[in-house]
Amino acid sequence: MSAKKEEKKLLPKGEEGYYWGRHPVLTLLEESPQRCLKLYVMRGAGGEAVEKALDICKGRSIPFQMVDAAVIKRLCGGENHQGLLAQISAVALEPLESYLERVPLSGPALLLALDHIQDPQNLGSMIRSAEAAGAEAVLIPLRRSALPTGAVMKVSAGAALRLPLLPVGNLSQTLQLLAERHHFWIVGLDHRAERTLWEEPLPDRCVLVVGSEGRGLSPLVAKRCDDRRCIPMRGKTGSLNASVAASIGLFEWLRCVDKCSEGL
Amino acid sequence: MSAKKEEKKLLPKGEEGYYWGRHPVLTLLEESPQRCLKLYVMRGAGGEAVEKALDICKGRSIPFQMVDAAVIKRLCGGENHQGLLAQISAVALEPLESYLERVPLSGPALLLALDHIQDPQNLGSMIRSAEAAGAEAVLIPLRRSALPTGAVMKVSAGAALRLPLLPVGNLSQTLQLLAERHHFWIVGLDHRAERTLWEEPLPDRCVLVVGSEGRGLSPLVAKRCDDRRCIPMRGKTGSLNASVAASIGLFEWLRCVDKCSEGL
Repeated sequence: MSAKKEEKKLLPKGEEGYYWGRHPVLTLLEESPQRCLKLYVMRGAGGEAVEKALDICKGRSIPFQMVDAAVIKRLCGGENHQGLLAQISAVALEPLESYLERVPLSGPALLLALDHIQDPQNLGSMIRSAEAAGAEAVLIPLRRSALPTGAVMKVSAGAALRLPLLPVGNLSQTLQLLAERHHFWIVGLDHRAERTLWEEPLPDRCVLVVGSEGRGLSPLVAKRCDDRRCIPMRGKTGSLNASVAASIGLFEWLRCVDKCSEGL
Repeated sequence: MSAKKEEKKLLPKGEEGYYWGRHPVLTLLEESPQRCLKLYVMRGAGGEAVEKALDICKGRSIPFQMVDAAVIKRLCGGENHQGLLAQISAVALEPLESYLERVPLSGPALLLALDHIQDPQNLGSMIRSAEAAGAEAVLIPLRRSALPTGAVMKVSAGAALRLPLLPVGNLSQTLQLLAERHHFWIVGLDHRAERTLWEEPLPDRCVLVVGSEGRGLSPLVAKRCDDRRCIPMRGKTGSLNASVAASIGLFEWLRCVDKCSEGL
């Protein structure tokens, strides 16, 4: 069966799904690696197909996990999985490299970078807000993060279908690349920062980095930011829902570029 | 059994619960009407207790509903309900009148008024953001709205316990009162408005009114606003999650008063 037919069979429209079997999984990884969110390999499985699949995953920063046969069996409903199962995205993820080729090197632009958001509800809500605020794309690490599943797409009110979602292996390296080669200014939202969000206008060419729900920005990512800003708060709760915080940052960028263009 | 003991028995800490039976419900309505979210009366039930209960509800704008015996039976788990059952709030609601007595008549102050928010998740998130932005209280209509239940309190990250929640019968009348007697400026968030959120600084004494998820501000409430502002948007989705929109408005107020106090 061709990969296309296999996909039709396995993947309900707009929902996450799974591929299994050596040939289907390898075809997926070779032809549409950007749709593969994660590879599951049965512990003890070997052979050429498994090695090739793992090589592709390593080369493309696709997460993989060695698991017991029972895990794979449960995920594929007891079908003949031959030791390989891939989780596929509900939306096409665009490789960062191909995206960056078509991004202009100057002019106002906003990217949202997510530093390991855990909650699918938050991920969907952030993608929705990013699109509404005029962001160009969302950078999503595939490891230790909520993945862009069908549920996420639904919460995003369809924005996940319109906005390029870029899978990222190493976020701090990617931020460095965006700063050095693509002239973005990296601004981290960080409740520990001394500077406030509205202390100074946000740069018009901006990557807004948002940390995970519990821990905020990871140390390496925080270090890579050119600027870190906190959202000033009153009251005693002392924190905001992560997607609300991200949205306040995103729309502060839009306010700044709107104000700026008014001044011209 | 005294109402206090009854409450202890029926209401798990931090969760919504129910009172049933003529005496307990009447005691609740007489002694702690601010905790009663809604009264259920069995169709065909009559007598002095029922009439007294309905009178209190009418006088205090507590919603009530005539229902089949089966509904009440299900809600109280088959106990002897005598035709009366009350849903009680997980948090104490403060009567608007007593709250307004202690609100200063001048100086910066922010109130959040909710025009029939339907989703408990959104209600909780809005209360959390309101407290973090420095709002003084949240006005919540009890009819056709999500109610401040235990689930809402949880989503609010506890803010629902710290911020006065004021039940409102008629929102547009209440807004008029706040404008005329308490010198608030009524600002409605409205995606149909021509003026943008950041076109002009928000007033430092402000009631921010947020409409329901699908319909936005109701016509009477929109008419009662002194000013209506839209959140400018790009992209094609064309809308934000209601709690995200409310939060952007709330923090725009905080930005404006922060900027203003810097200028002093």
